[in-house]
Amino acid sequence: MIPILSVVGRSNAGKTTLIVKMIAELVRRGYRVATIKHNRHGFEIDHEGKDSWRHKQAGARITVIASPHQVAVVEDIEKDYDIAELVNRYIRNVDLVLSEGFKKNPHPKIEVNRSEMKQDLLSTKEDNLLAIASDSPLEAGVPSFDINDTVGLVDLIEGQLLR
Amino acid sequence: MIPILSVVGRSNAGKTTLIVKMIAELVRRGYRVATIKHNRHGFEIDHEGKDSWRHKQAGARITVIASPHQVAVVEDIEKDYDIAELVNRYIRNVDLVLSEGFKKNPHPKIEVNRSEMKQDLLSTKEDNLLAIASDSPLEAGVPSFDINDTVGLVDLIEGQLLR
Repeated sequence: MIPILSVVGRSNAGKTTLIVKMIAELVRRGYRVATIKHNRHGFEIDHEGKDSWRHKQAGARITVIASPHQVAVVEDIEKDYDIAELVNRYIRNVDLVLSEGFKKNPHPKIEVNRSEMKQDLLSTKEDNLLAIASDSPLEAGVPSFDINDTVGLVDLIEGQLLR
Repeated sequence: MIPILSVVGRSNAGKTTLIVKMIAELVRRGYRVATIKHNRHGFEIDHEGKDSWRHKQAGARITVIASPHQVAVVEDIEKDYDIAELVNRYIRNVDLVLSEGFKKNPHPKIEVNRSEMKQDLLSTKEDNLLAIASDSPLEAGVPSFDINDTVGLVDLIEGQLLR
C-alpha cells in the first residue's frame, strides 16, 4: 500500500500552495510523489479543438494521449471514487500520495489554517490529524507548524509515513 | 483482449476527422469506445496556473484530477509505450480502441488517403490493412470506402472486430 497524506483546510487556506512546496521538498529528498485533487463540480482539462478533446466530445469514454515521456488519460467514470480507489486504479511506482479536496476521509492529514480566516479547524486528532500548518500556533493536541515550515512538515511526513 | 483498430495515413489526410465520425457512429450503435493518440513531440494538456498543473510543475510524477463523472491523469513515463502496452495500462471496460499516430504497429488498420495529396498508401495488406478510406477509389487488394462513408466503415469494423 502506497502511503496517503490528505491535505485539508477551508477554501483559500493555502492548501495548494502548501502541497506544491511539499512536493518540491519531497522530490529534493529523492521521493516519488503523486497527487490526487478532487473537484466536486468537475474540471476542465485539455484544450478545445485538440484531437484528444474532439475524441472525447465525440463520445469516447477514455482518451489516452501518449508521448515518449508523458501520458495523459481522460476517463468517464460511473461513480465518485474515494482516495483509496483512485490510488488503486491510477497510481503506481510512487512513494507517497498527497490528496486535496476530499471532504471526509480516513487517511492521515495535515490541516492548513490561517488566523485571518478566524475559523476553527475542520479536523480533530480522531480524524487522523497528524499536524497543523498555520500562520499562528494552534492547540489541537497535535504538532502545529508554521505554514511556511515545509522542511519541518516534510520531516514529520518522512518520520510518520515514509519509513 | 480489447480489439484495437489503428487509423493511419499521412499528415492532414483526415485521420482525426474520420476517427471522430467513427466514434459517433460506434457510440450510436451502443459500443463503448476508447481512443489512443500518439504525439511524438509531446503534448500540452491542462492549463497553466491550475492546481493540477502546479502539482505537475512542482515535480509530481502522477497527478490525478477526480470529479464525480470524470477522472484525468497526467503521468510521467520511462519509455515510449506501444499501443498494446497503453491499452493494458490505461484502458478497461470498452469494446474497441481506436488508435492514431503510431507509425509501425501490428494491429488491424484503416488507411485514410485523399487524391489531392497525390501520395501512395503507407500500408499494404501485409501490414494488416483492413480497408482504405479515400475520396477516390484506390486499388490495394482491400476494400476501398468513400472517406465519408462512416456507416460502411463501421459495418466493416463491426463484422471484423466486434463479433
